Amino acid sequence: MHVKKIAVTQEKRIYPIDDLNRSISLNEGAVDRQILIDANHDGIIKTTTGHELLFCDANFKDNYDRMKRGPALIIPKDIGFVIAECALTKDSVVIDAGAGTGGSTCLLAGICKTVYSYDIEPKHLKVVRENCIRLDIDNVILEEGDVCSITAPEKVDLMLIDIPNPTNVLESAKRNLKQGGFLVLYTPHINQVQEVVKLLDDDFKFVSTIELIQRRWEVDNVRLRPKHAMLGHTAFLTFIRLFKR
Amino acid sequence: MHVKKIAVTQEKRIYPIDDLNRSISLNEGAVDRQILIDANHDGIIKTTTGHELLFCDANFKDNYDRMKRGPALIIPKDIGFVIAECALTKDSVVIDAGAGTGGSTCLLAGICKTVYSYDIEPKHLKVVRENCIRLDIDNVILEEGDVCSITAPEKVDLMLIDIPNPTNVLESAKRNLKQGGFLVLYTPHINQVQEVVKLLDDDFKFVSTIELIQRRWEVDNVRLRPKHAMLGHTAFLTFIRLFKR
Amino acid sequence: MHVKKIAVTQEKRIYPIDDLNRSISLNEGAVDRQILIDANHDGIIKTTTGHELLFCDANFKDNYDRMKRGPALIIPKDIGFVIAECALTKDSVVIDAGAGTGGSTCLLAGICKTVYSYDIEPKHLKVVRENCIRLDIDNVILEEGDVCSITAPEKVDLMLIDIPNPTNVLESAKRNLKQGGFLVLYTPHINQVQEVVKLLDDDFKFVSTIELIQRRWEVDNVRLRPKHAMLGHTAFLTFIRLFKR
Amino acid sequence: MHVKKIAVTQEKRIYPIDDLNRSISLNEGAVDRQILIDANHDGIIKTTTGHELLFCDANFKDNYDRMKRGPALIIPKDIGFVIAECALTKDSVVIDAGAGTGGSTCLLAGICKTVYSYDIEPKHLKVVRENCIRLDIDNVILEEGDVCSITAPEKVDLMLIDIPNPTNVLESAKRNLKQGGFLVLYTPHINQVQEVVKLLDDDFKFVSTIELIQRRWEVDNVRLRPKHAMLGHTAFLTFIRLFKR
Repeated sequence: MHVKKIAVTQEKRIYPIDDLNRSISLNEGAVDRQILIDANHDGIIKTTTGHELLFCDANFKDNYDRMKRGPALIIPKDIGFVIAECALTKDSVVIDAGAGTGGSTCLLAGICKTVYSYDIEPKHLKVVRENCIRLDIDNVILEEGDVCSITAPEKVDLMLIDIPNPTNVLESAKRNLKQGGFLVLYTPHINQVQEVVKLLDDDFKFVSTIELIQRRWEVDNVRLRPKHAMLGHTAFLTFIRLFKR
Repeated sequence: MHVKKIAVTQEKRIYPIDDLNRSISLNEGAVDRQILIDANHDGIIKTTTGHELLFCDANFKDNYDRMKRGPALIIPKDIGFVIAECALTKDSVVIDAGAGTGGSTCLLAGICKTVYSYDIEPKHLKVVRENCIRLDIDNVILEEGDVCSITAPEKVDLMLIDIPNPTNVLESAKRNLKQGGFLVLYTPHINQVQEVVKLLDDDFKFVSTIELIQRRWEVDNVRLRPKHAMLGHTAFLTFIRLFKR
Repeated sequence: MHVKKIAVTQEKRIYPIDDLNRSISLNEGAVDRQILIDANHDGIIKTTTGHELLFCDANFKDNYDRMKRGPALIIPKDIGFVIAECALTKDSVVIDAGAGTGGSTCLLAGICKTVYSYDIEPKHLKVVRENCIRLDIDNVILEEGDVCSITAPEKVDLMLIDIPNPTNVLESAKRNLKQGGFLVLYTPHINQVQEVVKLLDDDFKFVSTIELIQRRWEVDNVRLRPKHAMLGHTAFLTFIRLFKR
Repeated sequence: MHVKKIAVTQEKRIYPIDDLNRSISLNEGAVDRQILIDANHDGIIKTTTGHELLFCDANFKDNYDRMKRGPALIIPKDIGFVIAECALTKDSVVIDAGAGTGGSTCLLAGICKTVYSYDIEPKHLKVVRENCIRLDIDNVILEEGDVCSITAPEKVDLMLIDIPNPTNVLESAKRNLKQGGFLVLYTPHINQVQEVVKLLDDDFKFVSTIELIQRRWEVDNVRLRPKHAMLGHTAFLTFIRLFKR
């Protein structure tokens, strides 16, 4: 469900306000419905137990952070790299395949003109649909289907592919990408990349494979070091441009 | 200069076509003006020396790759991470400061509604202006000035700060960011982060610092290894949200 | 306790055999004392429940892996880098300070001629002493004391320093290192390095600071990717050579 | 040639003194033979042009740094990790195969009891031999031959394998390793690891593959950041223990 307001505590928790017409009750105490309405859900409001809550508008990020998650959500470092490396804009039209829970679909929809999102699992599509509503997104065309066999209603600038056998997607890429468009493979295993590369013909050019290793740092008045816990790997990103003869 | 067409060689070079009304002459041979016009600069065209050139439309990426560069261009891994971590959309309004040559300004302009871009160096602004023309961008408001002292015409969702002394930007962030907006610092040195963190008051929350280490891979039929040459470092990215009491 | 024999299961567990004159009883079943003695604790021996155990000699590594641990054990990537970067040999004499539980002390003792090991905590020294016995090591001179104030019985090739305030160790390094010897700082925080570097005079040369990021890979018939869980950080290693005028 | 003395300049250069009975002539000026002998090549000696040189004993490291190099020298991070992960000691006996220029052979010889070093290229062996002399090493048994077909004079604790087709070495490992000994593969490509792993039978246990990513830092009074230039990759290290039934 899309929220318009959030409440932020001093201790750095963010509560989404699901219903603007009801009192709220939190670990930090309660606030009466009328007080919230009078304040227009804005500024500092004290709870019954004396805690200060800061009310303000929720933005896209706040709703994004509350998306229904699945195990395989593509994280910011990777989807961000795709966006910037392909230089996507508000005019871009993209295919997102292996939609999963819609992490990439929704972020791309916030930026691009149209996102065609495919998945072969109806239950995945159901989650993506809910997440689109949560994010108030109306430019996603969701379809059950195998990206390897579809023909999209229009040619696209990017096909972002997160499926178990990306070797099968090459013909679809020729069919659905604009000239100069990007086929981007998100593959957990590096040998999957090699299998695709072996199959590329001359219509595919400028192949490059990268991985981004993300380190979070511990920074305060004294400490200045990388954090001990770290995500060692998400996936390899392979960029391929179509220049079809 | 914005180009509408490119020519791609078999050997994986991309030539921008600056003037659609002139013959072209390349290392791979020449093509007559009339032949180009008859073909509408599209499809395979043979040069005088028998090379095949594939002509097609240039996209935003092709023009972006031909931007005038300076030493300190923010690269895709970093600007992409900012875009995705802040969940920017086509409705976002942002400040980009320390515009440099406009790498981030132009990419953000492709995505966001409005980009306010500040730099204290007139010669930098001149390059950014040229690059905006090259990319056919009209939603950048360029201004000479110190981001630490400006007040933007409207509150923004993101302030992306790449200046030598980011400790000075905190008051400006309070003045110019929307509630929940992001102050993002791009700092080459990690001690710069610590200096800022020491100065943060309670209006700033959810501070996190990350670095992205990018590895390119060598993948062909036989080889499967990271490349030997690698960029060891660009900058640390620090994300701070404003929730002003 | 030093063990001479181990039993390895098919399922990849290693059991140390503490007492060669007793029957053993494991999750995988029991083996009678007389059977073990007759077999000289060697080769395949079946347990009462039909599991096969492979008995063989324990080596230094097997005993090392069973050392009593503490929180701050220096791990192979770091101690190994120190050994190789300083090109230690069986003739080397070293000081190990901030002995902790003796991880580095014991590994260095296996390689070097003599290790002088200092710690200010008697309880740490007790653990190091036990670990030396476990590893059957007799070339460690253990002493309670602050490495910053000691004078070792002889000049050394390496001082490996893992203490909270390494800025204090410089005078001791001048006193205790041979010409050309290495002062190596193991510091969790990078600003600790900067504080030391600011204090270095001309007697210290060839300063270099590195960190090693260790990734483990998942490799089997199908999978070929870095593991998801990863240790993000241990410490920064700073190498400084003494050339005292 | 093994050197016993070095001269260190103020500007951080190290000159090996090849001949103790001759005058020296450097960029920093000359020093007369008799002055060097009178000073016993020790302490500060001024050159004819007034520069100060600090003379002192060369150590193993100084000679190691002056080894004749080839393209494929195994660097400290990797050889050090092998030494520490296998917990080698002065009692260890090892095989080093694909000796190359002897970087690993010489470092291992400084630490271990005996190193059997194999290479199929006579010209490589010649360089290793010269490097052993340079390092004053007498515990290396150098032999021309394919490590896959040899039988060493004694069972060893470690086989360090840097050859193009490590899949062929498994039988030799069974023949030449002690129980519990380590087969360590140094492979540039990750698919080489997978090919070996597919062939492992039950006699090989505790397989683990790691890579070490090395970052050098820029640290001075102001700067505190990773260096921009970085070596992106050397090799993957795979550790396998033999427990032969």
